[in-house]
Amino acid sequence: MVTVQENVPVTSSTAYDVSDPAFALHVGGKLETRSTVPLRNRDDLSLAYTPGVARVCTAIAEDPRLVHDLTWKSKVVAVVTDGSAVLGLGDIGPAAALPVMEGKAVLFKEFAGVDAVPICLDATSVEDIVETVVRIAPAFGGINLEDISAPRCFEVERQLRERLDIPVFHDDQHGTAVVVLAALRNAARLTGRSLSELRAVVSGAGAAGVAVTTILREAGIGDITVTDREGVLHDGRGDLTAVKRHLAAATNVIGLTGSLTDAMRGADVFIGVSGGVVPEDAVGSMAPDAMVFALANPDPEIHPDVAHRHVRVVATGRSDYANQINNVLAFPGIFRGALDARATDITEGMKLAAAEAIAAVVGDDLADDYVVPSPFDERVAPSVAAAVAAAAERDGVVRPPL
Amino acid sequence: MVTVQENVPVTSSTAYDVSDPAFALHVGGKLETRSTVPLRNRDDLSLAYTPGVARVCTAIAEDPRLVHDLTWKSKVVAVVTDGSAVLGLGDIGPAAALPVMEGKAVLFKEFAGVDAVPICLDATSVEDIVETVVRIAPAFGGINLEDISAPRCFEVERQLRERLDIPVFHDDQHGTAVVVLAALRNAARLTGRSLSELRAVVSGAGAAGVAVTTILREAGIGDITVTDREGVLHDGRGDLTAVKRHLAAATNVIGLTGSLTDAMRGADVFIGVSGGVVPEDAVGSMAPDAMVFALANPDPEIHPDVAHRHVRVVATGRSDYANQINNVLAFPGIFRGALDARATDITEGMKLAAAEAIAAVVGDDLADDYVVPSPFDERVAPSVAAAVAAAAERDGVVRPPL
Repeated sequence: MVTVQENVPVTSSTAYDVSDPAFALHVGGKLETRSTVPLRNRDDLSLAYTPGVARVCTAIAEDPRLVHDLTWKSKVVAVVTDGSAVLGLGDIGPAAALPVMEGKAVLFKEFAGVDAVPICLDATSVEDIVETVVRIAPAFGGINLEDISAPRCFEVERQLRERLDIPVFHDDQHGTAVVVLAALRNAARLTGRSLSELRAVVSGAGAAGVAVTTILREAGIGDITVTDREGVLHDGRGDLTAVKRHLAAATNVIGLTGSLTDAMRGADVFIGVSGGVVPEDAVGSMAPDAMVFALANPDPEIHPDVAHRHVRVVATGRSDYANQINNVLAFPGIFRGALDARATDITEGMKLAAAEAIAAVVGDDLADDYVVPSPFDERVAPSVAAAVAAAAERDGVVRPPL
Repeated sequence: MVTVQENVPVTSSTAYDVSDPAFALHVGGKLETRSTVPLRNRDDLSLAYTPGVARVCTAIAEDPRLVHDLTWKSKVVAVVTDGSAVLGLGDIGPAAALPVMEGKAVLFKEFAGVDAVPICLDATSVEDIVETVVRIAPAFGGINLEDISAPRCFEVERQLRERLDIPVFHDDQHGTAVVVLAALRNAARLTGRSLSELRAVVSGAGAAGVAVTTILREAGIGDITVTDREGVLHDGRGDLTAVKRHLAAATNVIGLTGSLTDAMRGADVFIGVSGGVVPEDAVGSMAPDAMVFALANPDPEIHPDVAHRHVRVVATGRSDYANQINNVLAFPGIFRGALDARATDITEGMKLAAAEAIAAVVGDDLADDYVVPSPFDERVAPSVAAAVAAAAERDGVVRPPL
């Protein structure tokens, strides 16, 4: 609750709890812009601004590719939201989403040296969001979509990738998927299995569920069952949206029906991205050496201590337990690599390469409680960036040098 | 011309003259974003990002006014262009305009501590520009319109001021007008006249011409004649746009017709914002102690040395002559003051106050070659900011404190 504090120095506002360090930290925001060039005198001004800048503008007008070299475009990503699916808070609107977008911008810079600007859109339709981002794209080198609700997020990303020649990446989908795959690769290695042997259950068919399912399939996991609140997605259900019909057709090769609990019986992997609750019995019914990724935040689908009674590897989204599945392991390095490679897109190959790079950082320290690196492991972002840049070259999605 | 240099270290691009210091300075751009909060460990991350940030988002969702306190919104201005009227270069498009917008963002920060983000729009119609800016407005505390061609710029600004509750300011119009008025106030003081005694000629009926004429009228100059390429604007002309018809009706009280040269005969003030050429004879025909503001850049309407043979005060847009009419004297302090005062608009009163503040900095040092302060005079921005903030209070356009 918002409370008014007594005995606090009067500033422009005391209508929030300034004894909460999160509020104290946020006063005035978390981000700033800065000049990277000197501006001490008329000579400096005549180069950075008129008349010198006119020669640079003219050169770009003559050869538009120069905008990547002679401006901050190739260094800066727009962090774009409509505020419709913010953290676990839901549709709180663009202004209330700004602290998260500022935070994301800060993470981009701190973890990978990528400049980033929060763009919070007062727009709700797919068409309005897409048109707006297309119109502001000339000054940005990449678009990180954030906290846009499903199913609109799929269409927004698809259309933007088609219309723009800069990388577009919906982090709630692909950032999560990349880190999940990294953790799963290591968990499989730990237990001596290949990804293709695993039977996986994905609980949740929203943005993250769709992307996790897609990347697991691309990584070679053939047997995946996806569930939503009504149970297992299968062709026989008449209540599915287009996205879920597509998911049902592409998964569930063993023809399961029934509930999440039914699906988990004998499964090797549970990945929760729904925020629901998983009964302990269901976890107990999984195969030996099973893996539970309970990623709902702040309350995992099952408490890690409870899950540990039954399974080998437990991961959550929380920083106070081992094996934190944190998107910050992925997005800064992915954009760093895409920008470094002058990539025009972020391909499935680049995402798979990012997952491999994250997994590889763990190396010989692999253990039940260490299948992903710490978010503060400084090896991660450069390693991901290098792998993503190489994959961009392989996939042929790089702008040729001038 | 763009040339390829030999014997230059091979970078991603050598398709421009890197021996030109303006190009060398622009490689990689001129702007960056930075975190203003620490991010050293999990505790820092849990305050700046999840889970702590969720409490801040929830507070803003409950009381939207808090966005001004708990984010960077009230510190940051969008520098918005469509690239249609960039410097003297014309319609070079949004990408080629980016170096100027970055430069402007740098000036905002360096001269007044205002964070600023370049937004270059791939949009041309008034409706598309307005809609796009309205949609991105939630994350910005002000909108600085820049280098948008007339007459669209008038309607873009009018609609945005009506629809947004943050300051909107078209610098090409009002920044120029404010500094011209500041210089004219001092020139009048220098020659012992009041503004109401002056007969002024404004050459140019574009963005700057309209705004200069408006502010001169508000400052009490009753006798103004405006000219375009076809000569004096008057009611009898059948070739006028709506904007020019309005200008003709509001000026030319003495019923002049004919050419610019006709208008200048006996005038006290000439203000050139057109880029045309003024013959020496016309300057010679002005009243005693006349003032010539030849603001076309880089080539003034008449060379300052030539003008000085006939008139008392000469000002230009150039940094290598005395009396530089430079918008940087106005826009940083105006936005600083508007943001400090929590202003929802930039009123005519705030612009007049800015002009007075700029003029006042000159003080007792007033001389023919010193009617405006240097752009690097550190007294200017704080003085303008204080005057603008006070005017915002007087004009009743400030958000009440929480």
